Amino acid sequence: MKNQILKIVKIGGNVINNEDALRSFLKDFAALEGPKILVHGGGRKASEVSAAMGLEPKMINGRRVTDEATVEVVTMVYAGLLNKKIIANLQSFGCNAMGLSGADANCILAHKRIVKDIDYGFAGDVDAINSEIIGVLIKNNVTPVFCAITHDKNGQLLNTNADTIASEVAIGMSNLYKTELNFVFELKGVLEDIEDKNSVIEQINSEKYEQLVVKGVIADGMLPKMHNCFNSLEKGVDKVKIGDASLVKSSTKLYTTLSL
Amino acid sequence: MKNQILKIVKIGGNVINNEDALRSFLKDFAALEGPKILVHGGGRKASEVSAAMGLEPKMINGRRVTDEATVEVVTMVYAGLLNKKIIANLQSFGCNAMGLSGADANCILAHKRIVKDIDYGFAGDVDAINSEIIGVLIKNNVTPVFCAITHDKNGQLLNTNADTIASEVAIGMSNLYKTELNFVFELKGVLEDIEDKNSVIEQINSEKYEQLVVKGVIADGMLPKMHNCFNSLEKGVDKVKIGDASLVKSSTKLYTTLSL
Repeated sequence: MKNQILKIVKIGGNVINNEDALRSFLKDFAALEGPKILVHGGGRKASEVSAAMGLEPKMINGRRVTDEATVEVVTMVYAGLLNKKIIANLQSFGCNAMGLSGADANCILAHKRIVKDIDYGFAGDVDAINSEIIGVLIKNNVTPVFCAITHDKNGQLLNTNADTIASEVAIGMSNLYKTELNFVFELKGVLEDIEDKNSVIEQINSEKYEQLVVKGVIADGMLPKMHNCFNSLEKGVDKVKIGDASLVKSSTKLYTTLSL
Repeated sequence: MKNQILKIVKIGGNVINNEDALRSFLKDFAALEGPKILVHGGGRKASEVSAAMGLEPKMINGRRVTDEATVEVVTMVYAGLLNKKIIANLQSFGCNAMGLSGADANCILAHKRIVKDIDYGFAGDVDAINSEIIGVLIKNNVTPVFCAITHDKNGQLLNTNADTIASEVAIGMSNLYKTELNFVFELKGVLEDIEDKNSVIEQINSEKYEQLVVKGVIADGMLPKMHNCFNSLEKGVDKVKIGDASLVKSSTKLYTTLSL
């Protein structure tokens, strides 16, 4: 199947938090031809449910610190509510989607992050992707939809960064398919000038990436995102694109393509 | 595969509400040989989460009335928290479980219950089982684990009785396998004398069933349960057993077997 392109598309809070934007994106995703996988992050619902249940969300360096009560809430919201709403919507648009956490059929095996300076609690770092069973699903015209929950095979569920899941799934599937990883975020791509939303840098290779970091064009939250992208390319992913929710439409021309 | 027996085991609140009882049951279920499917109900966690979120659970004739806020909560709790906890535990016991709602790969298609006297809200009545994809999973050594959430293929998730799901899945799969449906509940079986927990009636056929109803031995909550069981037998399920959580252990001798 190495001549077929498998697209792995990741969406985050900016799409998930807006019901209309989400439905519109899912309609476009359903229409996308060829084998595909969706990976979704959490959005603000987890914080709302946490608050309603009397838990206070804790963040360190932009990552949620996951105590036992919080892993229960994110499992409810990510694997339950959001994942199944996405599935029901995709099914209504004719896409035979199946929602999965990393625990399901051991699709994504992880371990609790080793404590160095900061204890992130039940945060998972990915060890392995079960590309065989994911491949079986795809061959049977099923579209896997992953939430950002993994497990350690010792019975513990783990909260895992959705960008990382998308990358690891794409890397893991690249033994079976040519893989294209699409990161959907709030901008049209990586911007030359943060004030100009249309100043998209259309092509970035590793050399240009280093220059952009030195110039300070790529900074803050974009740094781990881009690091993640180049890591995927180095580990076998064929192409990475970054753009807004229109990225999955074939008519869209403005986005950033990353290559080594 | 008609010479292979597929077991469909349903557990309810009495197992789910007790963490130790649940782990112990899941260990036994993981050890059960041959193809199998688990179906789980909800338990008291949904009411706890509803209460924490300021919703008041409404019941009519022992069935939850599901408004929009409630369908969100049951989706979170059943498809999210409970289903993924069960999966993580089964994985830890070496069972390659995969958690599914009816929306996933359109496994269980339903419609919102028609309003006659009572409006049950977003309660789903089952229309069809996608035995093909469930069969693919089983052939790939995956154990499907269903929560009691279905969908209508128009984007709406529906709360569905777990006993009904177990029956419908067993009926649906009986075109591919010999099927044995196991209902795990709080008693060792159907009791001759409700005061004597060991007075299990070991065999009940349809004739005896009618006699037991007339005598009042089968009454109240057991009536819809037994009706459900005989309906499954009439529609192609080979065997139905009712008993407590030890039902899945091969050493267990005391339970009720139903036949036509």
